[in-house]
Amino acid sequence: MPSPAPHDRLPLAFGGDYNPEQWPREVWEEDVRLMREAGVTAVSLGVFSWARLEPRPGAYDWEWLDTVIGLLHGAGIAVNLGTPTVVPPAWFYRAHPDALPVTREGVRLAFGSRGAICHSNPEYRAAATTITRALAERYGSHPAVVLWHVHNEYGAPVLACYCDVCAAAFRGWLRERYDTLDALNHAWGTAFWGQQYGDWEEITPPRATPSVCNPTQQLDYHRFADAQARANFVAERDILHRLSPGVPVTTNFMVAPSQGQTVDYWAWAKEVDLVTNDHYLMTDGRRTHVNLALAADLTRSVAGGGPWLLLEHATSGVNWQPYNPAKRPGEMARNSLGHVARGSEGAMFFQWRQSQSGAEKFHTAMLANSGTDNRGWREVTDLGRRVAGLADLRGTRTRGDVAMVWSWDSWWAQSLEWRPSQDLDARERLDSFYEALYDRHLTVDFLPPTGLGDLDPERYPLLVVPQLYSAPVGVGADLERYVARGGTLLVSFFSGIVDENDTLHPGAYPGALRDVLGLTVEEFDPLLPGETVSVRGADGSSYTADLWSEVVLPGAGCETVAVFADGRTAGGAALTRHAVGSGTAWYLATRLTGADLATVVDLALADAGITPVDLPRDVELVVREGESGTFRFAVNHTGSEVKVVLPDGSRAAVPAGGVEVFRDPR
Amino acid sequence: MPSPAPHDRLPLAFGGDYNPEQWPREVWEEDVRLMREAGVTAVSLGVFSWARLEPRPGAYDWEWLDTVIGLLHGAGIAVNLGTPTVVPPAWFYRAHPDALPVTREGVRLAFGSRGAICHSNPEYRAAATTITRALAERYGSHPAVVLWHVHNEYGAPVLACYCDVCAAAFRGWLRERYDTLDALNHAWGTAFWGQQYGDWEEITPPRATPSVCNPTQQLDYHRFADAQARANFVAERDILHRLSPGVPVTTNFMVAPSQGQTVDYWAWAKEVDLVTNDHYLMTDGRRTHVNLALAADLTRSVAGGGPWLLLEHATSGVNWQPYNPAKRPGEMARNSLGHVARGSEGAMFFQWRQSQSGAEKFHTAMLANSGTDNRGWREVTDLGRRVAGLADLRGTRTRGDVAMVWSWDSWWAQSLEWRPSQDLDARERLDSFYEALYDRHLTVDFLPPTGLGDLDPERYPLLVVPQLYSAPVGVGADLERYVARGGTLLVSFFSGIVDENDTLHPGAYPGALRDVLGLTVEEFDPLLPGETVSVRGADGSSYTADLWSEVVLPGAGCETVAVFADGRTAGGAALTRHAVGSGTAWYLATRLTGADLATVVDLALADAGITPVDLPRDVELVVREGESGTFRFAVNHTGSEVKVVLPDGSRAAVPAGGVEVFRDPR
Amino acid sequence: MPSPAPHDRLPLAFGGDYNPEQWPREVWEEDVRLMREAGVTAVSLGVFSWARLEPRPGAYDWEWLDTVIGLLHGAGIAVNLGTPTVVPPAWFYRAHPDALPVTREGVRLAFGSRGAICHSNPEYRAAATTITRALAERYGSHPAVVLWHVHNEYGAPVLACYCDVCAAAFRGWLRERYDTLDALNHAWGTAFWGQQYGDWEEITPPRATPSVCNPTQQLDYHRFADAQARANFVAERDILHRLSPGVPVTTNFMVAPSQGQTVDYWAWAKEVDLVTNDHYLMTDGRRTHVNLALAADLTRSVAGGGPWLLLEHATSGVNWQPYNPAKRPGEMARNSLGHVARGSEGAMFFQWRQSQSGAEKFHTAMLANSGTDNRGWREVTDLGRRVAGLADLRGTRTRGDVAMVWSWDSWWAQSLEWRPSQDLDARERLDSFYEALYDRHLTVDFLPPTGLGDLDPERYPLLVVPQLYSAPVGVGADLERYVARGGTLLVSFFSGIVDENDTLHPGAYPGALRDVLGLTVEEFDPLLPGETVSVRGADGSSYTADLWSEVVLPGAGCETVAVFADGRTAGGAALTRHAVGSGTAWYLATRLTGADLATVVDLALADAGITPVDLPRDVELVVREGESGTFRFAVNHTGSEVKVVLPDGSRAAVPAGGVEVFRDPR
Repeated sequence: MPSPAPHDRLPLAFGGDYNPEQWPREVWEEDVRLMREAGVTAVSLGVFSWARLEPRPGAYDWEWLDTVIGLLHGAGIAVNLGTPTVVPPAWFYRAHPDALPVTREGVRLAFGSRGAICHSNPEYRAAATTITRALAERYGSHPAVVLWHVHNEYGAPVLACYCDVCAAAFRGWLRERYDTLDALNHAWGTAFWGQQYGDWEEITPPRATPSVCNPTQQLDYHRFADAQARANFVAERDILHRLSPGVPVTTNFMVAPSQGQTVDYWAWAKEVDLVTNDHYLMTDGRRTHVNLALAADLTRSVAGGGPWLLLEHATSGVNWQPYNPAKRPGEMARNSLGHVARGSEGAMFFQWRQSQSGAEKFHTAMLANSGTDNRGWREVTDLGRRVAGLADLRGTRTRGDVAMVWSWDSWWAQSLEWRPSQDLDARERLDSFYEALYDRHLTVDFLPPTGLGDLDPERYPLLVVPQLYSAPVGVGADLERYVARGGTLLVSFFSGIVDENDTLHPGAYPGALRDVLGLTVEEFDPLLPGETVSVRGADGSSYTADLWSEVVLPGAGCETVAVFADGRTAGGAALTRHAVGSGTAWYLATRLTGADLATVVDLALADAGITPVDLPRDVELVVREGESGTFRFAVNHTGSEVKVVLPDGSRAAVPAGGVEVFRDPR
Repeated sequence: MPSPAPHDRLPLAFGGDYNPEQWPREVWEEDVRLMREAGVTAVSLGVFSWARLEPRPGAYDWEWLDTVIGLLHGAGIAVNLGTPTVVPPAWFYRAHPDALPVTREGVRLAFGSRGAICHSNPEYRAAATTITRALAERYGSHPAVVLWHVHNEYGAPVLACYCDVCAAAFRGWLRERYDTLDALNHAWGTAFWGQQYGDWEEITPPRATPSVCNPTQQLDYHRFADAQARANFVAERDILHRLSPGVPVTTNFMVAPSQGQTVDYWAWAKEVDLVTNDHYLMTDGRRTHVNLALAADLTRSVAGGGPWLLLEHATSGVNWQPYNPAKRPGEMARNSLGHVARGSEGAMFFQWRQSQSGAEKFHTAMLANSGTDNRGWREVTDLGRRVAGLADLRGTRTRGDVAMVWSWDSWWAQSLEWRPSQDLDARERLDSFYEALYDRHLTVDFLPPTGLGDLDPERYPLLVVPQLYSAPVGVGADLERYVARGGTLLVSFFSGIVDENDTLHPGAYPGALRDVLGLTVEEFDPLLPGETVSVRGADGSSYTADLWSEVVLPGAGCETVAVFADGRTAGGAALTRHAVGSGTAWYLATRLTGADLATVVDLALADAGITPVDLPRDVELVVREGESGTFRFAVNHTGSEVKVVLPDGSRAAVPAGGVEVFRDPR
Repeated sequence: MPSPAPHDRLPLAFGGDYNPEQWPREVWEEDVRLMREAGVTAVSLGVFSWARLEPRPGAYDWEWLDTVIGLLHGAGIAVNLGTPTVVPPAWFYRAHPDALPVTREGVRLAFGSRGAICHSNPEYRAAATTITRALAERYGSHPAVVLWHVHNEYGAPVLACYCDVCAAAFRGWLRERYDTLDALNHAWGTAFWGQQYGDWEEITPPRATPSVCNPTQQLDYHRFADAQARANFVAERDILHRLSPGVPVTTNFMVAPSQGQTVDYWAWAKEVDLVTNDHYLMTDGRRTHVNLALAADLTRSVAGGGPWLLLEHATSGVNWQPYNPAKRPGEMARNSLGHVARGSEGAMFFQWRQSQSGAEKFHTAMLANSGTDNRGWREVTDLGRRVAGLADLRGTRTRGDVAMVWSWDSWWAQSLEWRPSQDLDARERLDSFYEALYDRHLTVDFLPPTGLGDLDPERYPLLVVPQLYSAPVGVGADLERYVARGGTLLVSFFSGIVDENDTLHPGAYPGALRDVLGLTVEEFDPLLPGETVSVRGADGSSYTADLWSEVVLPGAGCETVAVFADGRTAGGAALTRHAVGSGTAWYLATRLTGADLATVVDLALADAGITPVDLPRDVELVVREGESGTFRFAVNHTGSEVKVVLPDGSRAAVPAGGVEVFRDPR
């Protein structure tokens, strides 16, 4: 793939999804006028426009889109042009009802919402590449088009289809992966419950079964479904690369684990020219700004540390959560600039103009149904001005202080049925460890569980593994190498248990990580809901844990730093420290949260030689650096003015709820 | 439709559903003897008798029904004769399995319960009219038959079917409604998510979809399903009118919103000769007698204020709720006479004799399985005597004091997915405002949201709109006219938001009601579960609210009567009062309940010039008036004797838990 | 059926399920070596091996099984050889997809877990008998094979299939049961809701219906599904009896009601040569050792009081519960020997070696994935030694002190929809009454509700009926005969309500039991969740009850021992005592638990002349007796040493958490 220069012509983006087909023509000029008023520099266009562009099979209506792109271009607004392949028209489904996806229970879903796609369906694949080709031919060289937006949020609302066409494709994918049935039978452990296959044709998707379905079959099906969708993305991308040379291609990710676990963004990020992301605050009782920071850090990480773009977020409340509160005054700007601080090349919204009809009319937008005389519009235009003032930071990068391992594949595996406790939740551990680091004002770079042996302890003095259930054998040796060279490793329970086939590593738990941690686990002993145990540190400190306990047997050289003080595993090690070479490997054998977890993290930070930053809670200080300079983002989520210390020793004020960007003198 | 005189030959009814086919012949004579002992004047007969009447296709067995009707007629008991079209026989389904309804997920439901009907199925329609014709031919002139009971509880247990026959009928219904596809595409907002239709044949029912299905498609399907069932009712009714002239036709409604939201009784009431209703106390933590009063008031209202008949209620516990407590001594009579007070021409039960088998054998009945030596029977016979003593009030009417707007169509629309808060609940607001008025001893007449411009403020000094999410544009002007002429209007939040197509009214919320209320709402800000905010009145009063807050911007002439004292919208208006002409329009922007809501209602009542009635809580005083006189029903739900003041100033006692009917001297 | 001598060649069993096909050949010799080290005497082999034994249709691979059986035999380990008919191979389903079971909603379940069987499918039946025949021919005379293990846990994970083949078979079963359609229509009460059948072909399984499906149809379908599975067992058994004469045949039951309600073990026990049982501790908040004792007592009871065998339990945590805590040190031995105390001829586990792959890899095993250097292995080998030391007790029997009635059929009927309260729960009453007796250190024999008229009051001075919703008429007379001859009967509410067709007994509740209890129940009055009532005894005692109240009318000679002190039934009888002949019949009209229930049970025990045993709570003393002697098992579930009194008056110590077996001197 000859990857074009990523986003040379893309301005620092401010704007949103623009769906002009929802509005009569007379509104379009008003839209463009108001976009200019708001400082909009880019819009995502045509994401859902297939039926409007091709109202009948093969009969295209380009005129309206020509007009809209022309209007935008005339106003100097760049276009992120969508391929509308997430919404095949009604006529397509009438002709090809088999393109509708089928659930595990065999229900063929219907037209009437969005994303009703069987990614294996050959008619869908043909139609999607055809419309993509037609678009690329018409607009591939249009000067307004600076980015291609393929499809929409792959994997949402459904990723996997369980139809017979998928079944055949799955068998093909398995032959590719395993070559022989013996290899598949071994990997899947089909000898258990008598599931051996004697012919490839016997294999079906993991449809609804009487008892729990073979876990590796399920896991491989998830991987297969991810691969099918990815192949469809690649097919469109390659057409665009050919017909629209020099224009980068993206598809909007939903990287935050809070937004779903459908696809593996480590793999997807390799296929896009520019990583773009959608992020929404989840009203789930967690601190929303912490989760936003995690999402932005993780997006930057899948983008390889390089620039990325926030393609969707909300100006205020959304419509699809159980409860959709409004954002507070100033909160939108904090959200938007918080993403920019962590590497986004701008801030875009879903959507430009609030819908009057359909499923999402209660989703707030840059331009409300009530027009421009309201707080929302005033904050949008303010933000537009602020973003415009930051044009210089294009191309700069945010640098993480510490590293954390995250794997979608392991999360999928862990999320299957019949684990020791149904409350084991890799995302929760990710969030909690991230929160502890966030509260120490540390910026986190995420890493996949591959190639960790080459990780530089100077660059990342601390590496946290919040929960890596599934880990190939090599991961243990890699981590050992990192520690031996001076790294500090902090591993949480239920890590290193199985390999990539969901097969237990031989020997005692935690199979892949026994050596680096210097211990074995004799037995898991999950706690019941509501049950807690006390953990007591050798230094007299005391913690309250829940969810999990286990019998840890520290080996030679492994120091017990804290023990279970009560409960069924009382007396056993709960927190250990293993010196390996010039580094140390910590292991936490139970679930701590909040201040308790922070204390443990502090122990590891001390080992790593990382000293505390002097900042109040809920104030972020994040740095973007590059050729154009160094930009310090101070984001104040508190209700009081705070002062931050700048490199020259001066103290600068950040107003309550405000964001300030300090540029280092050059 | 040549409507017959509604119920000239129908006595003041006391009795119940009579299902003699469940019992051997020797029991029938005992039944009739005991009915006389109990004072039974009417029974509903044959509602589930299709398989007994037509055991094989086209082969009728009339003999048993001839006998039963003869026995009843001989005893002077009137017959409300059922068309058994809610339960086609097993042979019918074996011949026509496609007549079984299909769920959204494509599951074709099976025979074995009741009401397994696809209302679009042509074979069902043909069979239903054939059996109706046969019944009408045989019994249309029988002197015992004073009312026809078509079908049973249309819409329960299922209203909508999603089969292909329904899909085709739906398309026909849509062509009728919209005429052109352009109109449909506009009304449904199909431009959102690329759902435009280019051919009528592309349209399907709102079956299970990957994400949320188009809301207007869902709403129209609900309307279509209602219309299909109604058309089947009309087809049966027209046969009966032709073959049984002079005998009114009804079908038993379930008007209480607590009983379901399936059909639109404003529309149905226009089609029946006499409104009849089924009502059951719901053990859902609400005050059951208040909900009973609401149900009776609403039933009278759909009957246009005229007489109606309670066709089913329970003597004591039912069987189909999660928990089915018994009624207390005296409670049955309070329930029965409470309905009569509010306009019912009698009180009938499901059912006469308790079943020994089948799904409802634990439903109590007038005659228990244990016979007549029990409290239940003694109370039934007492009640029979009381009803007999009230024969004179036939034809009198109950007059409401204040009015309230209720719309099934708006309730359906609001109940769809992706509203700002999933706890928005029009029925809850209806109940709560009703309860506040009930506790002021006010009788309520309900009105649909049409024709309100002609409402006479003298007749109804107060009009309450508890939650009218969906309101055509004209509603605002109508309400303004009502207020300008001196009416007092009280509107609760999330009203006037969309039009009949679930499309947002243009401009700021609350689109249709901005002018009459004299304000705009800048943004919705739903509260989270468990979250409350304080509301403080200009008079120093203080309230606790939950569920909802919003940013209200009062316009000129709109007075802020109370503000949000804390929470995210602190300082903003929570209760406003807008003087329009000689009236006032109140707006409550959050959810209050209980005493807090009552206080707000009192403010509006004061504006309306309605003075408090001097009665203890939980004592009702309801008046029926007509040519035969004025009857004052005093219903005492308390555990103590109370005194009520009569027009002549005398004070009359009503015993604890008792009901007294005082007839004004003529 | 010529039943072979039950288990002459079966040693006192210690071992587990052995699935060598999950492991390479080199592991097998290590397995056998370690089995000897652990004292293993028997293994269950080949339960899931169909695909390994018959990798292609008709092509058998015996070699590996010959080898394994040879290895085991060489080590003196007996084999319980499985027929693998619970897991037809993938090739079978590819050839016969109709053999996959169908849910009530019409979903045909897929291959990929286990037990995906339609028991009516003729191809499945043919294939199952063919593989059984092949196994029996090859191994029927092998000296190692001492027991046949047919299938696995019939009824789990699914019992009933709802396909068309089952529908036809159901009709055949119904013709057999009812002979005429009139009889079926009467039994099912089809006159209710117009469900009369005019042709057998009209009848279908109780598939998903719009409202509640006919209860007797559902109940009969459950009986039919049980019978279909049982017929398949019998077909295999008869082949084994013919081809492997003298070797007893079993299938592993799951008798504990906590493990499911699928099949009727009173019926199944008649078909097996030896009752075997699987039992797992359920982490559901109940006292696990009490439920274990119940399971063991009930298993012994379905085995007619004779020896039985615990075929599966877990060494520590399982994997399939929501939370799977580990067993405490010593707990496994208490569990194992607790079963032996109550009649088990040994203690076997699922499984010998922990799986590395598949759905149950987190299920603990005798030999953990980590090998032998751990507490688990040490406890297993200790237990092996203890079991070996108990060889003499083979063939002895455990004697129950009191009797309790339990009926799966009644439980099924009660569990259907639309009972007076959805929280009525026969299993809960069973557990609670059992617990009260357990806490009095009484061993319980369970009885089906048949033949109770011949029950000897000398043998069982107390008979408890914790909840027998469904009781044929004769049960009342039988119980009356038992009481009249001196028995003490204790009946709890909601018993004797319906007959075997789920038809109410005529007359007042509790129909079948009015005479023996000397009372009638005028009305049920279930309590709401959270609602409690007080019960006050004539002796001043006071209790708190929930779930249920009712209006009891004691007849002549029926003494009111306690009344409802408050609530809706205040003043009415809550506990009564009816003298009949030389015995008494107690009736408890509400739900008591814990100490309150124990007090009522004590009243009945006093009537029965049973005096308290002097033992601390949570210490069991259970006796096995027979030709080889008398063995007293003392099981100490407490954390302290306790002393038990032996027949010679001496006091013997039982350590904290320990088990001691005392043999009476001969």
